[in-house]
Amino acid sequence: MGGARSGKSSFALNEAMKISGRKAYIATAQALDDEMKERIRKHKEERGADWDTFEEPLKVPEIIGEIKDKYSVIVLDCLTLWLSNLICGNIACSREIDDLVTVLKNSKLKTLNSKLFIVSNEVGMGIVPENELARSFRDIAGFLNQKAAEVADEVYLVTAGIPLKIKG
Amino acid sequence: MGGARSGKSSFALNEAMKISGRKAYIATAQALDDEMKERIRKHKEERGADWDTFEEPLKVPEIIGEIKDKYSVIVLDCLTLWLSNLICGNIACSREIDDLVTVLKNSKLKTLNSKLFIVSNEVGMGIVPENELARSFRDIAGFLNQKAAEVADEVYLVTAGIPLKIKG
Amino acid sequence: MGGARSGKSSFALNEAMKISGRKAYIATAQALDDEMKERIRKHKEERGADWDTFEEPLKVPEIIGEIKDKYSVIVLDCLTLWLSNLICGNIACSREIDDLVTVLKNSKLKTLNSKLFIVSNEVGMGIVPENELARSFRDIAGFLNQKAAEVADEVYLVTAGIPLKIKG
Repeated sequence: MGGARSGKSSFALNEAMKISGRKAYIATAQALDDEMKERIRKHKEERGADWDTFEEPLKVPEIIGEIKDKYSVIVLDCLTLWLSNLICGNIACSREIDDLVTVLKNSKLKTLNSKLFIVSNEVGMGIVPENELARSFRDIAGFLNQKAAEVADEVYLVTAGIPLKIKG
Repeated sequence: MGGARSGKSSFALNEAMKISGRKAYIATAQALDDEMKERIRKHKEERGADWDTFEEPLKVPEIIGEIKDKYSVIVLDCLTLWLSNLICGNIACSREIDDLVTVLKNSKLKTLNSKLFIVSNEVGMGIVPENELARSFRDIAGFLNQKAAEVADEVYLVTAGIPLKIKG
Repeated sequence: MGGARSGKSSFALNEAMKISGRKAYIATAQALDDEMKERIRKHKEERGADWDTFEEPLKVPEIIGEIKDKYSVIVLDCLTLWLSNLICGNIACSREIDDLVTVLKNSKLKTLNSKLFIVSNEVGMGIVPENELARSFRDIAGFLNQKAAEVADEVYLVTAGIPLKIKG
């Protein structure tokens, strides 16, 4: 959890790097233009050969379900953007969120000692947005964060690059 | 304290539930349409028979003063919406805020062992709003949070449903 | 670090007051109108005779470099406004930020036992702004906060007037 450019992704990646074995990075960002493609390519290079990258804007619960037995660690970056992609694609969020929570709760994830790091944005600490869609997005993003935090073993709030453990 | 949909109200209600005796819930939200009326009715039902509900968008210091000796616990939900109602009603905030602080400081509240939980929004952690009224609201809401936190025995910052004690 | 009207400046000033000797206050706010001039004058008066005030909207690394040997404590208020002034003045931020980090890292600051308090805004915890400039500003402000926090000995997150130490 953290605000924009709070260092939350770097923190998750650094924690994941400490774990040995194959690592998976699920990117919900879409390479819609050349600048974005270049950024994604660069980040991929920075992570290095230990990592497989999955670009998946929408089917996040499905991909976690598929790959969770094959990696010692998975980083999902980020939950809020996934929600934004769902809403922009006119996909019913509530079922998708339920699916994600089911996957997260799935005990196999724990028995196999694979770890999942989820990066998410805090978006509810500004003034109430005038735009109705933004208000509704903010509400659902907040609920999603609550649900993800509930099933998580540890939760960190990242501010100015500094992680603060708030659960675990 | 917490952002939108941070779980701050649920946290306050859960803490209040732990205290035995009659409980009061002061709702500053107004039932302006049927959807809202339904939501308020549902929340009331969820709280159960231990609770009396007071819908009071404006006269919050007055109602706390009136009822504080009759309940073992009072939840005020929420401070930021009360401020918003005052501003929309063209009511001078500064006097109302002073009145609230006076009621909060009132020693009788403590000697009687009744507890008051105040739910409030953090609204100052986004980008500076373009709208002048929003900027001014954000400033006053921040000052109000400071004043309420100053007289509170305990303050929690709630993020993704997780309370972090920052005072007490 | 803190949101708007979170009490972050007051906290920094109170901490600075505990240190004896000459104190410097670097204000990045500009007195663009009479109301602002009056506010600045009032704050200056409140700080008292121990303090010298430097109004410097842009050349912040330079002024810290110049005065750091002459004061036992310096308060810079605030980093986010400095960034905003740079951007509005069409000045390349990245070099300025590098200059600031260099000054902050400068070991003389530590060997001389002078202390520097930097006030900064958390602006990334609201909804993504529609305005492109605001989005870009939010990103740079977040990076700047990370860089400043990295070289700082202590970092506090201030909410509702309550400081929470997150580093140090």
